[in-house]
Amino acid sequence: MLDELRAIVGAENVMTGDDRARWARDWTGYFPSDPIAVVRPTSTDEVAAVIRLANETGTTVVPVSGNTGLAGGAQANGAIALSLDRMNRIREIRADARIAIVDAGVILSDVHTAADAQGLIFPLTFGAKGSAMVGGVLSTNAGGSNVLRYGNTRDLVLGIEAVLPTGEIVDLMSELHKDNSGYNLKHLLIGAEGTLGVITGAVLKLMPKPRAYATAMVAVASLDQALVLLNRLQEATGGGVEAFEYMPRNYIQAHLALNPANRAPFEDMHDINIMVEVGATAPRDVTPGPDGTIPIAAHLEETLAAMFEEGLLLDAVVAQNDAQRQAMWERREAAAEVVLGAGRPVSNNDIAVPLDKVAVFLDRMRARVAAIDPQAEPILVAHLGDGNVHYAVWMSSEDPQVKDAMTEAVEDEVLRLGGSFSAEHGIGQGKLGSMARRKNKVAIATMRTIKAALDPNGILNPGKVLPPE
Amino acid sequence: MLDELRAIVGAENVMTGDDRARWARDWTGYFPSDPIAVVRPTSTDEVAAVIRLANETGTTVVPVSGNTGLAGGAQANGAIALSLDRMNRIREIRADARIAIVDAGVILSDVHTAADAQGLIFPLTFGAKGSAMVGGVLSTNAGGSNVLRYGNTRDLVLGIEAVLPTGEIVDLMSELHKDNSGYNLKHLLIGAEGTLGVITGAVLKLMPKPRAYATAMVAVASLDQALVLLNRLQEATGGGVEAFEYMPRNYIQAHLALNPANRAPFEDMHDINIMVEVGATAPRDVTPGPDGTIPIAAHLEETLAAMFEEGLLLDAVVAQNDAQRQAMWERREAAAEVVLGAGRPVSNNDIAVPLDKVAVFLDRMRARVAAIDPQAEPILVAHLGDGNVHYAVWMSSEDPQVKDAMTEAVEDEVLRLGGSFSAEHGIGQGKLGSMARRKNKVAIATMRTIKAALDPNGILNPGKVLPPE
Repeated sequence: MLDELRAIVGAENVMTGDDRARWARDWTGYFPSDPIAVVRPTSTDEVAAVIRLANETGTTVVPVSGNTGLAGGAQANGAIALSLDRMNRIREIRADARIAIVDAGVILSDVHTAADAQGLIFPLTFGAKGSAMVGGVLSTNAGGSNVLRYGNTRDLVLGIEAVLPTGEIVDLMSELHKDNSGYNLKHLLIGAEGTLGVITGAVLKLMPKPRAYATAMVAVASLDQALVLLNRLQEATGGGVEAFEYMPRNYIQAHLALNPANRAPFEDMHDINIMVEVGATAPRDVTPGPDGTIPIAAHLEETLAAMFEEGLLLDAVVAQNDAQRQAMWERREAAAEVVLGAGRPVSNNDIAVPLDKVAVFLDRMRARVAAIDPQAEPILVAHLGDGNVHYAVWMSSEDPQVKDAMTEAVEDEVLRLGGSFSAEHGIGQGKLGSMARRKNKVAIATMRTIKAALDPNGILNPGKVLPPE
Repeated sequence: MLDELRAIVGAENVMTGDDRARWARDWTGYFPSDPIAVVRPTSTDEVAAVIRLANETGTTVVPVSGNTGLAGGAQANGAIALSLDRMNRIREIRADARIAIVDAGVILSDVHTAADAQGLIFPLTFGAKGSAMVGGVLSTNAGGSNVLRYGNTRDLVLGIEAVLPTGEIVDLMSELHKDNSGYNLKHLLIGAEGTLGVITGAVLKLMPKPRAYATAMVAVASLDQALVLLNRLQEATGGGVEAFEYMPRNYIQAHLALNPANRAPFEDMHDINIMVEVGATAPRDVTPGPDGTIPIAAHLEETLAAMFEEGLLLDAVVAQNDAQRQAMWERREAAAEVVLGAGRPVSNNDIAVPLDKVAVFLDRMRARVAAIDPQAEPILVAHLGDGNVHYAVWMSSEDPQVKDAMTEAVEDEVLRLGGSFSAEHGIGQGKLGSMARRKNKVAIATMRTIKAALDPNGILNPGKVLPPE
């Protein structure tokens, strides 16, 4: 088997033993990987040859991207770990048509850089952007901080190329905004976490780069007031809100405790702290006034001042320069360090509820958490504009029963409110239990039927996404 | 069988013989329908019972919506025609969460009206909006005139409920903007033209209603100049262009010939006529100036005037009141009458090419059309902002060989340019030949595998979408 793999990709691209180390550890540390070998093809044809071989020999294959997933979707024990890291070519950027055509192994921040050079953006962004690769991003249907304005990953992809479990290549590299020609296989493969096919290339949508951003920290008295703030800002800017991120008091405190260089957002400490960012694309929103002010920033400042006068805000600070803006973003993007850096046992839950139900969810959870573990403390951050809460709990022990009880309590309250137990991180292995307990049974059965039909030998990323029957 | 159907939906809701007439004729007239019976359930459970019965007895079922499809996707010869027209309830509108929860039998324009009453819009719109139903709109993944700003149907749907070919109900009525929990069955069913399931309900996204529109007719010297116009307008308005519709000279002339009340857009006749509409949502774009002008309209007028000074436009007229705006829209929405009303044999092609390739496509086609039928005349209208061309040809005869040659020539040139032979009308039966000839073979095989797995008895809308093997 190893010899055959070497014949396909070259001996130097089949890593065994200690040479696998770079690919063996995922970001969370919960899912260390022990693959037969790490195989690093350089072309879609090589990917196809590897998968054909695997399918014929009944060997399992796990596609591995940047290993930044949070649900163990890329753990490759006893399987071929298929890394596309050498397929990292930006094939073409067509600025006029606003598209980037890329290999699946391109790192997300390299897409950002390439788009920026053309005065455009690829708006998808999140903390792991410096190591996450396009293939993994698409397979997870990653979310992030700009979903409010630009949508999830799947909304930003025009076409894909993939290798199916049979080793056949399916070319769906459409550059089109309208293409109704049969079942939408692109959307089936996006978010399938590499269980139905290995994405090898993509056509990504680029967007005009906002000419200016205005960024602020705002404190409000309640989450209902936060929604009033969101709607007022959307109205004032014609839907220009790009980020609307909620950080509670203990998040701010934990962030301060991480590093003495970190600063508090306000002089006073508040319970509900929102980071808001507005992007402006129209020239008249960015032409500086006689005093040097940028209209979009002045406009944000005026809107917030008016709301403060009306008693709708407790406090607000608008970033006056790029350094202040960066500090606001860094506070938010430090979430993983804030939650894990305290060194306390953690129950981690990536969930979504309807926008207007976040406050109820958090209220109900406070009681549930206390009932399970009186010393526990919720520590959360939320993409509030999407109803997506990263609801973690610092627990008093690693007791797996307590941890399970936390997860089930979160699921209970989420489903009672019409939410989802899995918002943007995917199922992988970490959420198989939730999937089995909570997902619509007919939906799961339908997914199993599709999986069995497309991957009859069960070779692609087994044990992920679909709970055992 | 009829008795069993009557037991499920009530005798008065099983139409046979002449009572089927209302459902027997589709808008095109090309696909008259001769179903066993028209069955009209009033609930998802009744739909499920009908489909279970059909699956057990091996009877075929064709879901029928407004019969406004253009590809024969709802022809129900020898099948149960399943009409959801009595399932026409708008279940709930939640303005704060910006969603409408509806039955699949609701007529599109009724969704518009209900959203409007809340100061919101459901932006999807096209000529047949007064009879097309939500279920058909979703199953076709309809496009229309606002795709440029708001996306296709699938981009406007948060959740669906559907009955699968086995009669099982799958509840995917998510209200969430982030929900990564397994394969995306919603996107698989949307655009599947009723071959994988019958959509019975949907959660639709609503949008803030633009506070004002500015609408204009613009004449330019070339389609390249039209793209310059589009990009300039997008830049000036921060992406506010809602419609960008191209009508050539002979379209304008044919429209004038239809009705003596119709008016020409300009004093002079031009080759390239563009209808452009810009929507404004921010208050400062709609606060009237001291002279009563609306900023968005003044802004459009200024931008066009500046481009005219630069020699980039040949002519431009901005609508000064709602009647003028309506007249511009009516000229565009009369497309079906313009093309079919001339009483000439027609080859009709709904295609898409990359935005920057429309001009090349039309140039190449002129030569191809002339070579096939020297008396033929292309008559087209295009959603130019999406690269979607409704490319019709008036031919000198109904000769099926000539018609086929036209279709194949269109397909050739579309595929050479990386386009799609099917943009927004779907495959139905009308494009099965194109699908067989032009769609990626691996993609078709994968679709067949999915169809066979989910509908093993082949009862749902047979003979549509997938060409025979």
